[in-house]
Amino acid sequence: MGSRRYDSRTTIFSPEGRLYQVEYAMEAISHAGTALGVLATDGVVLAAEKRTASKLLEQSVGAEKVYLLSDTTCTAVAGLTSDANTLVTYARQQAARYRTTYGESMPVEQLVQRMCDLKQGYTQFGGLRPFGVSFVYAGYDTHRGFQLYTSDPSGNYAGWRANCIGANSTNAQSILKSDYKDEITLSEAVSLAVKVLSKTMDSATITSEKIEFATLSLDKSGRVRFHSYSPEEIEGLLKKEGVNTQQPEEEK
Amino acid sequence: MGSRRYDSRTTIFSPEGRLYQVEYAMEAISHAGTALGVLATDGVVLAAEKRTASKLLEQSVGAEKVYLLSDTTCTAVAGLTSDANTLVTYARQQAARYRTTYGESMPVEQLVQRMCDLKQGYTQFGGLRPFGVSFVYAGYDTHRGFQLYTSDPSGNYAGWRANCIGANSTNAQSILKSDYKDEITLSEAVSLAVKVLSKTMDSATITSEKIEFATLSLDKSGRVRFHSYSPEEIEGLLKKEGVNTQQPEEEK
Amino acid sequence: MGSRRYDSRTTIFSPEGRLYQVEYAMEAISHAGTALGVLATDGVVLAAEKRTASKLLEQSVGAEKVYLLSDTTCTAVAGLTSDANTLVTYARQQAARYRTTYGESMPVEQLVQRMCDLKQGYTQFGGLRPFGVSFVYAGYDTHRGFQLYTSDPSGNYAGWRANCIGANSTNAQSILKSDYKDEITLSEAVSLAVKVLSKTMDSATITSEKIEFATLSLDKSGRVRFHSYSPEEIEGLLKKEGVNTQQPEEEK
Amino acid sequence: MGSRRYDSRTTIFSPEGRLYQVEYAMEAISHAGTALGVLATDGVVLAAEKRTASKLLEQSVGAEKVYLLSDTTCTAVAGLTSDANTLVTYARQQAARYRTTYGESMPVEQLVQRMCDLKQGYTQFGGLRPFGVSFVYAGYDTHRGFQLYTSDPSGNYAGWRANCIGANSTNAQSILKSDYKDEITLSEAVSLAVKVLSKTMDSATITSEKIEFATLSLDKSGRVRFHSYSPEEIEGLLKKEGVNTQQPEEEK
Amino acid sequence: MGSRRYDSRTTIFSPEGRLYQVEYAMEAISHAGTALGVLATDGVVLAAEKRTASKLLEQSVGAEKVYLLSDTTCTAVAGLTSDANTLVTYARQQAARYRTTYGESMPVEQLVQRMCDLKQGYTQFGGLRPFGVSFVYAGYDTHRGFQLYTSDPSGNYAGWRANCIGANSTNAQSILKSDYKDEITLSEAVSLAVKVLSKTMDSATITSEKIEFATLSLDKSGRVRFHSYSPEEIEGLLKKEGVNTQQPEEEK
Amino acid sequence: MGSRRYDSRTTIFSPEGRLYQVEYAMEAISHAGTALGVLATDGVVLAAEKRTASKLLEQSVGAEKVYLLSDTTCTAVAGLTSDANTLVTYARQQAARYRTTYGESMPVEQLVQRMCDLKQGYTQFGGLRPFGVSFVYAGYDTHRGFQLYTSDPSGNYAGWRANCIGANSTNAQSILKSDYKDEITLSEAVSLAVKVLSKTMDSATITSEKIEFATLSLDKSGRVRFHSYSPEEIEGLLKKEGVNTQQPEEEK
Amino acid sequence: MGSRRYDSRTTIFSPEGRLYQVEYAMEAISHAGTALGVLATDGVVLAAEKRTASKLLEQSVGAEKVYLLSDTTCTAVAGLTSDANTLVTYARQQAARYRTTYGESMPVEQLVQRMCDLKQGYTQFGGLRPFGVSFVYAGYDTHRGFQLYTSDPSGNYAGWRANCIGANSTNAQSILKSDYKDEITLSEAVSLAVKVLSKTMDSATITSEKIEFATLSLDKSGRVRFHSYSPEEIEGLLKKEGVNTQQPEEEK
Repeated sequence: MGSRRYDSRTTIFSPEGRLYQVEYAMEAISHAGTALGVLATDGVVLAAEKRTASKLLEQSVGAEKVYLLSDTTCTAVAGLTSDANTLVTYARQQAARYRTTYGESMPVEQLVQRMCDLKQGYTQFGGLRPFGVSFVYAGYDTHRGFQLYTSDPSGNYAGWRANCIGANSTNAQSILKSDYKDEITLSEAVSLAVKVLSKTMDSATITSEKIEFATLSLDKSGRVRFHSYSPEEIEGLLKKEGVNTQQPEEEK
Repeated sequence: MGSRRYDSRTTIFSPEGRLYQVEYAMEAISHAGTALGVLATDGVVLAAEKRTASKLLEQSVGAEKVYLLSDTTCTAVAGLTSDANTLVTYARQQAARYRTTYGESMPVEQLVQRMCDLKQGYTQFGGLRPFGVSFVYAGYDTHRGFQLYTSDPSGNYAGWRANCIGANSTNAQSILKSDYKDEITLSEAVSLAVKVLSKTMDSATITSEKIEFATLSLDKSGRVRFHSYSPEEIEGLLKKEGVNTQQPEEEK
Repeated sequence: MGSRRYDSRTTIFSPEGRLYQVEYAMEAISHAGTALGVLATDGVVLAAEKRTASKLLEQSVGAEKVYLLSDTTCTAVAGLTSDANTLVTYARQQAARYRTTYGESMPVEQLVQRMCDLKQGYTQFGGLRPFGVSFVYAGYDTHRGFQLYTSDPSGNYAGWRANCIGANSTNAQSILKSDYKDEITLSEAVSLAVKVLSKTMDSATITSEKIEFATLSLDKSGRVRFHSYSPEEIEGLLKKEGVNTQQPEEEK
Repeated sequence: MGSRRYDSRTTIFSPEGRLYQVEYAMEAISHAGTALGVLATDGVVLAAEKRTASKLLEQSVGAEKVYLLSDTTCTAVAGLTSDANTLVTYARQQAARYRTTYGESMPVEQLVQRMCDLKQGYTQFGGLRPFGVSFVYAGYDTHRGFQLYTSDPSGNYAGWRANCIGANSTNAQSILKSDYKDEITLSEAVSLAVKVLSKTMDSATITSEKIEFATLSLDKSGRVRFHSYSPEEIEGLLKKEGVNTQQPEEEK
Repeated sequence: MGSRRYDSRTTIFSPEGRLYQVEYAMEAISHAGTALGVLATDGVVLAAEKRTASKLLEQSVGAEKVYLLSDTTCTAVAGLTSDANTLVTYARQQAARYRTTYGESMPVEQLVQRMCDLKQGYTQFGGLRPFGVSFVYAGYDTHRGFQLYTSDPSGNYAGWRANCIGANSTNAQSILKSDYKDEITLSEAVSLAVKVLSKTMDSATITSEKIEFATLSLDKSGRVRFHSYSPEEIEGLLKKEGVNTQQPEEEK
Repeated sequence: MGSRRYDSRTTIFSPEGRLYQVEYAMEAISHAGTALGVLATDGVVLAAEKRTASKLLEQSVGAEKVYLLSDTTCTAVAGLTSDANTLVTYARQQAARYRTTYGESMPVEQLVQRMCDLKQGYTQFGGLRPFGVSFVYAGYDTHRGFQLYTSDPSGNYAGWRANCIGANSTNAQSILKSDYKDEITLSEAVSLAVKVLSKTMDSATITSEKIEFATLSLDKSGRVRFHSYSPEEIEGLLKKEGVNTQQPEEEK
Repeated sequence: MGSRRYDSRTTIFSPEGRLYQVEYAMEAISHAGTALGVLATDGVVLAAEKRTASKLLEQSVGAEKVYLLSDTTCTAVAGLTSDANTLVTYARQQAARYRTTYGESMPVEQLVQRMCDLKQGYTQFGGLRPFGVSFVYAGYDTHRGFQLYTSDPSGNYAGWRANCIGANSTNAQSILKSDYKDEITLSEAVSLAVKVLSKTMDSATITSEKIEFATLSLDKSGRVRFHSYSPEEIEGLLKKEGVNTQQPEEEK
């Protein structure tokens, strides 16, 4: 009850120093499909759960949850898709401008921070609401190699070896913490991601329609390679990891 | 009752992370005439129900529900017509500017996303309300061929093989899901659209006055061809599909 | 009662998806003098009821309800006169600019839509109220010939063969619907307009002081001719149609 | 009581389609000194009641109620003097700019409408209140000859043969309606104005201190001549018309 | 009680057409030190009561109540000193700009009106409060000779032969009205000002510390001469007029 | 209780013509450390009490209460330090700009007034609060010699021979009033300042840590010399004046 | 309870002259991880507690609490990390611009004040909230040598020999006050910092994961050297100081 007076704007602190609107935005994310990332020695894997699965949906367009931000950075989202789209557009512009100006890819953390500065502003200025979306970023630059970040509606971000956002993320983080090994390979990381999703998604069965997988790695010439898994590849992956993928007929 | 404190602005989240104004805008759409689209192998069909039918209404102007956005993209709307008009004007300007700048048609998804970024902004900035309108887009570009999208007041969009917006859309989506086949032809898609409309529209009878039909296809030279059905063609179509079109005298 | 929380701004939807301020603006129009238009094969007639009749009023200036927007478009209004004046000024500027830029008259629908886009904006941005005025437009362009449109405070517009706005418009529309014939001539249309006004105006008697009549037609050289009826012509018209025009002495 | 929710901003309609703030502004005018105008065949007379009469007041400066707007237009005001001053300054700038641009006087109605468009904006935009002032305008242009207009806080205006604004204006209008003749001369119009003022002003006696008179006519060379009556001329006029001008000692 | 809903903004009228915030600003002035002016045939005198008298105060700087606005205009203020300072700065800029542009002094009334237009704006635009200050202006120009004006927070102004603002101004005006003669000399006007102050100031005794006197006259070469009385001159003046100037010890 | 409706914005007057927010800002100052100034024949002394004394505090930086504004003006502050910092930055810019433009130091009163005009604006425009800080200014210019001013949150300022702001300022003013002599020397003024501080500061003992002293005087070549007392000099001064400076151990 | 009316905006004072929003922002800081700084004769040490420790967190990126602002200034933060990021970005831009303009490093206090002026603005302008973050700054410039500052959400700052912000800072300040010696070396200062953290952090054990250490010193060539401790160095330091670093397994 006491919170009521302080929870309708981002421009006021509660007496305990809390920003309720930011917390409510995080609440929106806690109901969204899970997204996770695992950093391996030779790459990064991003995986995301899609909630609006339908056999009439075009898999390849519009409803995806993994976005390419630049030639060296991609992200998986949890939360309001339209908010995510706007931020992704912003990030792509920033990355493209950097490349035009400096002739090289924008360092990963710099791109993440740029997005977070924008997010932060929406928690401090009147007449705005926070962005209702969290991100898992995977990226590579020559300075720091492969990197994994998460950011939330407050504009906070941090670098991780493995992390998860969205629904059931506490549960997923426990699995990651117990199963993550320091010298993990990308292949093992993919398996770990499958395991985490299969144990935390609400659906009884997991199908290629409900999941997106993408990896970032280096090809033989040392160039960054972004690979988004096709439905068939996801199907194969799930089978390989022994996940139940039998699709019930009554599902949407 | 609890929602009351959080439902009068787009700039605040409710404690559950909801944006009530966006949901209310969707409510406006759920009372509007149905609009649907079906993606076929050789084209796309859009169909829409017109609510303000009157024998004094000029069929061809002003009250139409299917708009041409560019030479390769069209859209059917459900919701507030004046909001739709404003967004259509915006989309046409974007498409024209793209053509002027790059010498080719704007890719379909890019045009859709541009409109959705605008829509999203109206859910996040103070002193605005969301656009009270949803769209079904049909388009063609060389990269992805024929495409079908929907977008809603939040600025979310997705690609579909078939989908429906507006009143009775849940009902319509069920029919689409059960009757849609993967290798559907444009001709079959038109029949499917007629079937869906005839089973979901509130009116006892369906007349050419109350329906709009448009198709996007390629002509023999490979150019995109937009065809808006004349009242006579619609009449023929309805007869062919066995729809009751007898117009009662007391109708407006 | 429930509406109370959502009816004081144009920037919020009610839970049912309604925009109350737009509806209240329409309420203002429903108390205003009637205005109507009838589209004929060889022209268009506009007619309007004047509420502020007084023998001290100058008929020809300021209080008129029929405005010329361009050399090919005119309009009759119902609602707040000062709001109408502002929109008419805007429309005239738009039409003049179009003529200067392209060397020809602005197409009628384009002019109507331009005004409606402005109107729509006043229903979506904070710190504004909707325009409290509806219009009946009559126009001619080479593409579509004679045309008749109406628009309302929401920014909606549509093309009509005959329509009526303002007080008693439901009643008037019934008469129009029953008496309108497809191949009506301008002369018959004028008679129909007189009939509608005489049956729907609140005053016991109709005088030339309380009515405005204007027609749009083509002269022999094919140029658009706007004719505003003089009090004497209106008097003659009313007599010809057998309308009681005896002016009571106690009238203002 | 019901009005309470809708009466504190110009940017909302009440459920009955009323703009209360505009009505309240008109209330301010109904307590202000009367101003009236009478259109004659050979000129126009404006007359106004001054409420702040004091023997210490300089008659000729600052507190006047009749203003010259251009070389061909003048106005008498009723309402908030400071609001009137601001609008008069605006009108003078508009008229001067017109003269500079086109080399001739601004047509009377165009000047009136320009002021009314400004007035109208103050009834539609947030963070403003309507101008609390009404005007009676007298003007002359070659197109329409002598003209008389009134405008109110809503931005409405109309052309009149004779009209009155401010306190007791209903009463005054009755006298005007019964006594006004179509072919009235300026001299008769002045007498009529005196009669109206003497019968409607609240003061027991009318003195030259409490009244302003001004006429617009053509001199022999056909140029517009504005004449503001001196206290002596007013005194003479009142005597000629038999008005009681004995000034009580206890008056301020 | 009824006023409560309409008294917290300058942008709304009360149902009776009142602007409460303007009235409250005037209330602030009614508690401020008196200021008065008397127009004579050969000059103008301004006098003002200083409330913050202290023997530690520097008489000559900062707390003065009579300001020079241009080489031909000066003013005495009653109300919020900081508001007055801002307006005085504005007036000086206006006067200096006029002199630069036209090579001569700004006419007195024009300067007064310029300040009043600014004042008026603060009673009509949102997010502002009225200026809490009234002015008595004394000025000279070749067109009208010596002039005296007052203006109040609403932006109203008028020309006077003698007037008074601030605390006890009603009382002071009575004395002015009874004692003012038409052909008063500057010397007599100064005596009248002393009389008015001595009879209306709240303090038991009047000292040079609590009063400011300034006169505007023409020197022998016909140039405007502004003279601000020194404490000694005030002392002499008070003695000459027989005012009790014995300063009690317990005064601040 | 009645004040409640008028005390939360600087843009409204209370019915008694008060600006509560300005009064509340003054309340903030009444709890702040005392600052005082004494004007002597050969200079000015400023003294200020520092509340945040700690042995870990660097005396010379950041927490000082006496600021140099230009080469000829300095100020001591009482109130919110961060507000003071902002205003001091503004004043320094104004003074530097003046010097650049005119090649000489800005006159003292002009600098004071510039700051006060800014302060005043914060009491009149929406969305702002007044500056919560008062100043004592000491300055010298060739026109008026040494000068002493104070200003408060309303933007009022005045010239003084001696004055005090902040906590216990009423008490301090009494001492100043009784002990100040007209032909005081700077050396005597410093002694007077020590006396006032020692009798009004809340602390039981006064140490060099808790006090700042600064003087403005002319050196032999006639240039303005600003001298800020070192802790040792303050210590010596306090001893010389016989003030108890024994620092208790339990003090922060 | 009484505070309720004044605690939701930064633009109003409470009747006691308090700015509640600033106090609430400080409350946010009082729950954040501790940060402290100790100024030594040959350098400065900053230390900070990290609350979001996890074995999956990348130590080196994103979640750090010590930032380099320029080549001569660094800072440790307590409070909202995203607010800190924004301010750090601002400070880096200011410092870089200074270096570009003047060819040398920005003086430390000037950089601190620049950030504080920005902070202050957020406590005075509408539609903003204060920055929820405090800083401990360490810096070096040739004018003043090594320096230590703190700033808080109000924009206040001060120079210190040793100070602490964030949770348990009162406790930490006591230890600093009792143990700080005037001629402390950087090595001793580091030991003191370890001691303070070990006695005030809430965790039972302190690990290198939960702490950041950084020092600023001069290298042999006299250049400023910033050194951020590696986890191994921290581990060594803790062991050397005898701090219990055994990490419990159940910790996150």
